[in-house]
This record gives sequence, C-alpha cells and structure tokens, in this order.
Amino acid sequence: MDGGRFPIKRTVGEVVVVEADAFTDGHDALCCVLQYRKAGETAWQEAPMLALVNDRWRGEFTVAELGRYEYTVLAWVDHFKSWRHDLGRWVQAEDITLSLRIGAELVGKVGQRVAGMEGHWLTERAAELVGSQNLEQRRLLGLDEELAQRMFRHADRTLALSYGKELGVVAEDVRARFSTWYEMFPRSCSPVPGKHGTFKDCESWLPRLATMGFDVLYFPPIHPVGRINRKGKNNTLTPGPDDVGSPWAIGSAEGGHKSILPALGTLEDFRSLVQKAREHGIDIALDIALQCAPDHPYVKEHPDWFRWRPDGTVQYAENPPKKYQDIYPFNFETADWRALWDEIKSIFAFWIEQGVRIFRVDNPHTKPFAMWEWLIGEIKQIRPDAIFLAEAFTRPKIMHRLAKLGYTQSYTYYAWRNTKWELGEYLTELCQGPGREYFRPNFWPNTPDILTEALQFGGRPIFMSRLVMAATMTANYGIYGPAYEMMEHVAVKHGSEEYLDSEKYQLRQRGFQDLDGPDSLREFITLVNRIRQRNPALQSDWGLQIHLVDNEQILCYSKATANHSNVILVVVNLDPNYTQAGWTNLKLEALGVELSQPFQVHDLLTGAHYIWNGPRNYVELNPHRMPVHVFRVLSGLHTERDFVTFDG
Amino acid sequence: MDGGRFPIKRTVGEVVVVEADAFTDGHDALCCVLQYRKAGETAWQEAPMLALVNDRWRGEFTVAELGRYEYTVLAWVDHFKSWRHDLGRWVQAEDITLSLRIGAELVGKVGQRVAGMEGHWLTERAAELVGSQNLEQRRLLGLDEELAQRMFRHADRTLALSYGKELGVVAEDVRARFSTWYEMFPRSCSPVPGKHGTFKDCESWLPRLATMGFDVLYFPPIHPVGRINRKGKNNTLTPGPDDVGSPWAIGSAEGGHKSILPALGTLEDFRSLVQKAREHGIDIALDIALQCAPDHPYVKEHPDWFRWRPDGTVQYAENPPKKYQDIYPFNFETADWRALWDEIKSIFAFWIEQGVRIFRVDNPHTKPFAMWEWLIGEIKQIRPDAIFLAEAFTRPKIMHRLAKLGYTQSYTYYAWRNTKWELGEYLTELCQGPGREYFRPNFWPNTPDILTEALQFGGRPIFMSRLVMAATMTANYGIYGPAYEMMEHVAVKHGSEEYLDSEKYQLRQRGFQDLDGPDSLREFITLVNRIRQRNPALQSDWGLQIHLVDNEQILCYSKATANHSNVILVVVNLDPNYTQAGWTNLKLEALGVELSQPFQVHDLLTGAHYIWNGPRNYVELNPHRMPVHVFRVLSGLHTERDFVTFDG
Repeated sequence: MDGGRFPIKRTVGEVVVVEADAFTDGHDALCCVLQYRKAGETAWQEAPMLALVNDRWRGEFTVAELGRYEYTVLAWVDHFKSWRHDLGRWVQAEDITLSLRIGAELVGKVGQRVAGMEGHWLTERAAELVGSQNLEQRRLLGLDEELAQRMFRHADRTLALSYGKELGVVAEDVRARFSTWYEMFPRSCSPVPGKHGTFKDCESWLPRLATMGFDVLYFPPIHPVGRINRKGKNNTLTPGPDDVGSPWAIGSAEGGHKSILPALGTLEDFRSLVQKAREHGIDIALDIALQCAPDHPYVKEHPDWFRWRPDGTVQYAENPPKKYQDIYPFNFETADWRALWDEIKSIFAFWIEQGVRIFRVDNPHTKPFAMWEWLIGEIKQIRPDAIFLAEAFTRPKIMHRLAKLGYTQSYTYYAWRNTKWELGEYLTELCQGPGREYFRPNFWPNTPDILTEALQFGGRPIFMSRLVMAATMTANYGIYGPAYEMMEHVAVKHGSEEYLDSEKYQLRQRGFQDLDGPDSLREFITLVNRIRQRNPALQSDWGLQIHLVDNEQILCYSKATANHSNVILVVVNLDPNYTQAGWTNLKLEALGVELSQPFQVHDLLTGAHYIWNGPRNYVELNPHRMPVHVFRVLSGLHTERDFVTFDG
Repeated sequence: MDGGRFPIKRTVGEVVVVEADAFTDGHDALCCVLQYRKAGETAWQEAPMLALVNDRWRGEFTVAELGRYEYTVLAWVDHFKSWRHDLGRWVQAEDITLSLRIGAELVGKVGQRVAGMEGHWLTERAAELVGSQNLEQRRLLGLDEELAQRMFRHADRTLALSYGKELGVVAEDVRARFSTWYEMFPRSCSPVPGKHGTFKDCESWLPRLATMGFDVLYFPPIHPVGRINRKGKNNTLTPGPDDVGSPWAIGSAEGGHKSILPALGTLEDFRSLVQKAREHGIDIALDIALQCAPDHPYVKEHPDWFRWRPDGTVQYAENPPKKYQDIYPFNFETADWRALWDEIKSIFAFWIEQGVRIFRVDNPHTKPFAMWEWLIGEIKQIRPDAIFLAEAFTRPKIMHRLAKLGYTQSYTYYAWRNTKWELGEYLTELCQGPGREYFRPNFWPNTPDILTEALQFGGRPIFMSRLVMAATMTANYGIYGPAYEMMEHVAVKHGSEEYLDSEKYQLRQRGFQDLDGPDSLREFITLVNRIRQRNPALQSDWGLQIHLVDNEQILCYSKATANHSNVILVVVNLDPNYTQAGWTNLKLEALGVELSQPFQVHDLLTGAHYIWNGPRNYVELNPHRMPVHVFRVLSGLHTERDFVTFDG
C-alpha cells in the first residue's frame, strides 16, 4: 500500500496472510517470523513463517478486535539451523565427529546464556553431543526435534534484520465487509397521500425491511432544506410554494447539518427510530453532504468558509457552462480551514451521539484528502465500528485514494457495466486485484441519481438480473429501494439517467399495498437476501472466479469460501428478451470439485437441482421465467443417495 | 526499486522516462513537472510532464554524463490553469465577464509578485482583461497561449507537493549495456606446445580478437596458484609435480590477489598487455575470486579472516558431503571485518591502477551484500566507468539483489534454457519485466564450468544457433572462446557439464592454424559480431518481442530501436537434426511495419532477401546449412525499386 503509507483492511476475526521475500548472501539457513501487535502495544506477538519456494515466506495472524494492528517481518541467519542441515548430510565418521564438536560449542554457548532449567537442559545436551554414546546415537541427538525447537526459542537475534517498516491493518466491524443497504426518502414514507412523511412513519417500515433482509437503512440528508434558489419538481428553477426542494440543498433559518427538518420530526423521534431499527438488526445510515444552501446559517456565521467573487457574491457550484445556484461549496483553501475541519468533525460526532455509526458521504472527492484521513481517524477513536461509504463517482485512482485514506466502502461503476466482458473485467479487478486489500465495492443497480438505460428499457428480467448480480458479485450491495421494488423505469427525458418526477425534488409515496403487491419485486429481493445470509461465500469479495461460457449473453461466476465449505455458482442471461443457452467451461478447482466426480448444483432461486459432471455443462435461461441461476455447488457426491435437499 | 532504496540503471546518453500518478481532490487543474539533477548538485533541472490518461503523467530526461542522477516529481494545484479551462467553456456574456474579473485578479497578483519586464507585462495584461476591448477580444486575451506560459513560469508553488523521495539512476559506460566478451586462459596461449603461456603470448591474440569483434577479453585469475592441496588434471586429488592447478585456488608463497603468477610474466608485462588491448578497442577483464588457497599469505598474516574449527584447522569450503580442501573462504563474520573489507577494496583498486576497469566477480552471492554495495560505490568514485559482472548462478532473487546493489551485468540461466517455451518466457521476463531497469543479462552459451548437454550432443548446428541467440537476445554476451570456436564438446563423464581435460586444471593449447582452420566457427562468430555492431537494435535489451510460429521447434523474436529505425528479426530452428518449417504470426507493430504494406526481410547471415506481407509468412530452416535467419526488416517499400541491398 504505497510503501506502507496506508493500512490494509480486514474485519474482526479475519486472517491476515503475510508473505515476504527473505534471503541472505552465502549458504547459511534463515529463520523468519511474522511480528504483529495491536497499535499502541509495545510487545510484538510472533507467528512462524514457512519457506515456500524461491525465497518467499508465508505466515498469518488473526485480527481479533476492532482497531488498528501493526505487523512486520523479522529474519536472521541461524547458525544452529545451518549446522543441523549439514549434520544430516555428512556421511563419513570423521566429518560427523567434527560436526558434533562444532554443534556442542553452538549448543553449549546458548546453554550458558539461558537461565534456569532450559539453560541446564541445553548445557547437558551440549555435553552429550561429544559424550560417551556411540557416534550414531550422538548424531541423532544432534538432529533431535526438541533440541531444534529449544535452540529456535533462544536463537541469537542480535543480528536479526527487520523489514524496517511497520505495516498497518485496520480491523473493522463485520458489516464493513457484508452489508445490505436500502435507500429511501423518509419524507415519502407517510401512508397518507400528499402528506410529508416523518420518522414515526419510517418506524412502520422497519419490520418489512428486516424481513426483506436489509441491515442498513440509508436516508438522504434529513436536515432543513434551503429556501433560496430552491429547486422545483423535476429540477426546475420555478418551484411552487409547497415544493419540498432537494434534501442536498442543506440549511435554512431552521438550522444546518446538525438539525432535523421539522417536518420529519424531532431529534427525539430520530433517536427513537435509530433505536427501533437496531432492534430489527438495522443500522440507520446518514448522508453527509458537505455543502450549503444559500440560507444555511454557516454562510452568515462563517463567511470565511466560502469563496467570494469580485461581484460580492458567494461562489456557487458550477461546471461551466452549468451552474448550481442552490449549492454553495465550502472553500477549503480558507485560512480558517482548521475551524472548518473541526466543525465538520463535530457534525459526524453529533450524529454518532444520536446513535448513528454508518455514513454515506456525498462527493468526498471534492473535499480535501488530508481532511478525510484525519477525520476518519478521529471518528474511529469515538466509534471504532464506524462505517464510511464514499459516494465518489470519479476517476479510478481518486476512488482508490479515498479507500486508502480510510473509507470503508465505495460506490462503483457497476451500474454502467452491462456486457459480459465489462462485468468480467471489472469483477476480476475488484475481487482479485491488489485493490481488494483496501477497496470494498458496494454495488448499486440504481440510486436516486442513476436510472440506467438498462433499467429504463430492460423490463423485469433486467431488474431481476441486475439485482442478483449486485447481491452476489460483491458482499456489500444496496438499492434505492421503493423505486427498485416497483421497477420504476421512466426517465425525465430521453438520454437522461434522472427519474421522471424524481423523489429528489418532490414526495413520492408508494403504499404498502403496491410495494407488497404482485407487481413488486419484494419477494424476489427477500429470497436473494436470504441466500446471501445463508451462504458465507457471498459475504466476502475475495472468492470470486469468472468461468467461461460459449455464449456472449451468458455470464458465469462463482464465489467460494477459502476452504470451499460453501460454493455458489451464478449463471446470468444478460439478454432481457430472448432465451439464451450455452455450454460452460468451469474451472473446477475454484468450485472445490474434482475432475472425476459428479457434483450437484442446487438452484436456490427455483429449487431445481441438476447433476453435473466435469467442466462442460449445459445451461439455458428464459429471461421471462428466471434470468438467473444461483446454484449452490455440492461436491463429494458418490450416488444419488448422497444428494442433499434443503431450502435456501 | 524497493521503494527508492536502489537506483535504476542507464548508460550515458540514454533517456529516463518517468511516469507518475498525480491527482488531487476537487476539480482544480494540476501542473506536474519532473525534477532531476546530477547527485551532489543542489539545484533541480526541470522537464515538463504531460497528462496521459487516468491521472498518469509522463516526462523524460537524458543522463548525459557518467555517475548518479536523482529525480523526483513535483505537482501543484494551478488556479490559473483551472480558470483558463473554465473561461474556455463559459457561454453567456455575464459569466464571461465575471470570469474575466476573476482572471484579472489572478494575473494581477502574479504581476505584482514578479519583478522586471515580466511583472510589468502581466500587470498590463491583467488590466486589459477588464479593459476597454470588447468581450470576445478580452476572452481571447485570457485564453492566450503566451499568457498561459508566463503564468506557468511564475506559478505559485508554495503548496506544491513533491513525490517525497529522490529516486536514483546511475549512468554507466556504454559498454555496460553493449559488450562482447571472449574468455581465455592466458596460460594456454603459448604457440609452443607444452609451454606455459605468458601475457606476451596473449598480445599476439589481440588483432585476431579485435577482428572477430570482441571488445572484452576476460582472464580467469592471474595470481600465483596455491600448492597445498593443489588439484591435478581433471580435478583429481593426486597432482603431478608439473600440474599447474586451478587458477581459482589463489595464493602461495609467491603472493596473493595483488600478485601475478610469475609464469605469466611481470606486472609490467600485464600493464603492457592492457595498453595494447586498449589500442585494439579491447578491455582486459579480470576475475576476482575472493577465496584463498591454504598457502595464501593472508592465512598466516590474518588468521582472524578465516573460520577455525575445534580441531585447530581452518574451515575449508564444503557442501556436505562434498569438501573442497584447496579453498579457504573468508569468514566475513570476523570481528576484523572492516579491515577485511578494506583489503578487498584495495584489491580492486590495485588492478584499476594497472588499467583494468572490468571485473568478473566469482560467486559474489557468498560474500556480504552490504560489502558489495559499499565496495562498488567506492570503486566507482575512482573509476566511474568500472563494470562488474556478477558470476552468481543462484536463486533469482539473490541475482536480482546483486544487480540492485550495483553489479553492472549478470550471468544468467541462458545456458540451460533450450525449448521454445523456456526461452520465450525467460526473454520476456528479462527484456520486458520490471527487472530490466537494473538487471543486465550477459548470455554465455558456455563457460569453463558449463558445457551443456545441448552443446555436448547437438553438433555444429547447436553451436551456431546458441551463439546467434546469445548474441542477438541480449546486448551483452560472451563465450569461453577457444573451446567454442573449436566446438569442443566432450564432457569429463556422462551427466557432467565439466569439460574433459578441462583447462581449469591443465594447459590446453589450440594453435592459430586450428582456430583459423575450416573446422572453426571463427568466420561465423565474426559475422555475427559484425551484425551486432552494425545494428543498434542489438545493442540494447529493451526492444525484444517474441512472435508466434506454428512449429514448436522454431523460435522467432525481434529486436527494434525505440523509433523502429533499426529492426532485426531472428528465426531459429531449435532442432539440430531436421529441417523445420512453419508459418509466422508476426506482431507487425513491433516491427514498425504497417498491415497493408509489403516489407523486405534481408538475411544478414546468408544475404538472401524475401518480400513478406502481413503477419503470416513461411519460414524453413535446414540446420545443416544454416539453423538461423537473422533478418534486417525494411519497411515502407512500395515497389521492387525501393528494395535496399547492403552488406551486413
């Protein structure tokens, strides 16, 4: 990670496998150990490293607790180990005799250095090596495993060489690795048509979302919405008096980033909602958008935090020739930047006090990198299990930088990856590339900003396949929920990815009778989430493998736990219109399947099961019935009697 | 290179291309420059870096002189550049007007800061931006290229960010990159059968070797040979009184590493030889083998430099159960190591005083890494054009480490790479892998220690093909000359790579009448070396590309200069017995050839030329006539009239 500049990431209980090249001049034997400790501790713990091939060594340790660990590698030339190796190879009696004399010196010296019983034992053994027993007996005493272990324990490390850097790994909450997000606008949650929703209304959604398998409920900003330059429906510049505006235009006379839009309820209501959500196993995630409406209190209280133009106005957001006059970005080049940073930190700290620990940060790439590294570190002092999702739809290296700086999860390009080649390349990069050590993708098929062309025109098969892919490709995924459940797919205009009548600018109420009705994806989503919960292979990004299929419309990939105790194989028909069929060419190793043995694939979506054999198997998917197979792979079957049936 | 720990390598006049990822938060524009200087200088020189794609920037500089250079990258957010970008995109008059006001402030501020005419010019321009000309004229003044250049020159770099490390590149003598080695034993050079050769005898070889195209003449150790435990002919332990022993058993009563074996001549003779060689464009390279015969003066003078065993004897070299009792290695773990290092340095310095600047170091991997880094640095203070060839036939990472520590060139595994797959993989690694920045391979088809199975049984075709491959795959190559010229191929016993009657233990005289006779490879070697001299593509390792051929016995590769001004295409029949034929699948891009145009391939070995077209062309090689094509590729031909003929 940039030469040790940044820590890698794990979640609590995961293993860190460390490999190092360790070698020296000459022919002497090396010993090599992995050293690790919780940050702040002074003493190292040690794990052995084993030589693989070509001077590569490997060891591992587990990060058992939340927080930062450090690790490094230590190696030394071990004369006893070299000597023991030689002793095993000498043949002639004169050579063995002389070798034992040398060994007795080596062991005797350590015996003198070491206190107590251990020192005594070594001193005695040294004497025995040149003692009265016959040569072969003494040779075996020299090669004795117990002697080797004791000598390793007391090896002379005065010339040991360390890697020289203490590398870091941050152990995070399990939900950093495996989470299922549902985004909704609380203001649309009222059961009464036309009425502004409240946090109280949201409470009635909790049992439903928990049943559907969501564990993060994410709200767009819940603060007072600016009135100056407020946007009207469909992003118009001519709002009516009742228009609710965009929640991302934060701040008005009613308050700013630490206030709640009065129409949603009180701070007390919010705390109650957070508490009730927790009882359902759900975390409330807040959207932190560090920008201000023109009437945000900061503008008057801290004019230095904004950029002023020669005409005496505040610089609003712009991307020439476009202008966003309802949004004032902070000027992070202000001389008063330290106070600005402190205030921003206090926003996160405030919501943590209200029980929130998951934050989706809006456009973090337009705020200082240095601030994020500092701020995330500070916040984790308060809540080590805090989770930050970066909403940075920008260039790859910037997205990766944010992840290195501490962002727990990141939005991705998934929404725009449609073809088999695109998806395969992207997944291989994310799940097998070096970035997987720190960049945790969170796949969203839609967001309030992103109604892709695929969703606009693909119909129910695409809504189903894009959901299953998001849910099975990466362990973190989310949907902009009510719109996805209802398969909303009409854009504001041709060529746009904006929803028609977007909830960003108006209320959009969807009653439970619709959401739970026959045209909803509710049951399908519930099934997919249940499959995620029951299959550990889907709870990590690391075990993914692409498999070949001789049809460009069929994508096939597997996910497996490290020991293949759980293996999922997904086959997707990317074509929403026609039945597609083809032959797989499976990498059986990735499935934990032996070439000579048949194996069962059990479709967790339909309950069907098939007996497959070898890499080549026939698949056929009618998108209008079910565009995806999500197979659990069961190997080690010998006869039909071994077949297992189970639900999910 | 290990995070900047080691410098990369170039030769004088070569270009260093530097790429860097440079990006920042936000939407501001960056400027990025490459900074470089000769080590020891304080001021940086600068070269522009241009943005490629995905936040990757590229710049370059030339290393014009011998020695170490440093370089780093500097980038800053440039508000003028951002402003200029925006100005170009505003459409409405009100936006342009305001933008010009902002620009006038930016330019005016710099104008005040900068002294003299330049400051005056900028101040005036600032006034013009908000002056009386019409809007479009003022807009064009703002976008003016000259303004941009002046503003770049005086950009505010107070918040510029450097890469943070000063990376190193060592510029070496051109012969570090391109050299042609001939190894011979001076003691075998007498024209009188049975007589010990002398340096005077060697002088008569010089015109011949120069004509053959060799520019490095390398001698095994020229020091007094130990008498205690001296080896007899064919490595026997029972030498006769006239046996000359192994020159690697260094030291006797006659002297050690700074002495010359009296039978070879005097120091004066040696200096004369070095001088005469230089007149022929040849460097004499010495073999530095840091080990002692039991009667080396060091053993008595510095007993602390050796390891003593419990039985009171000195530890000789051993690899259980084998023992090498004629060789005492130094004990580098001696407390007196500093004196030992100094003495070793003085050996190199002594021979440099005699005019030597090229050293082949015997088994450097069994001496301390740290010593080499120090020693090579010290020696280069005396002779910046010194060249060190590492004879480390050991594990890859150790060979690479020696190269990183400063070894100029390295022996390789080439002698044992025989199949098309092996050669292709190895070449791709060496010529395209990251190691090429510091690891310069020197290919030897044979050495006095290495008579490969291929050479033992492959006959003349293999001697020819292995020579051409060594000479065209890597820019540095060498042969153990007299034995190669005469195609000596009889091993001491079955399964051994040792020559029968090896020159390592006895004189082996080969008269010029044989060496220049019809059974010699002299003329072929001369031709191959001439091709190397005339084709710059063969004088660097970097331009290599493997091409496909649909026959496993035919290897095809090209070498090209960076701008394709010189392109060589080699086709080798690896089968020494049978004619092999096949169709190429050439990567035309690597040849600088366009798909639609025919091109000429001119065989520099036979003079034949062919008109080829596209990637697929037929090749056929009869190993008994000529096992190799070495084509020069001539593209851009339109009619037969454009075809060029030339010799070599």
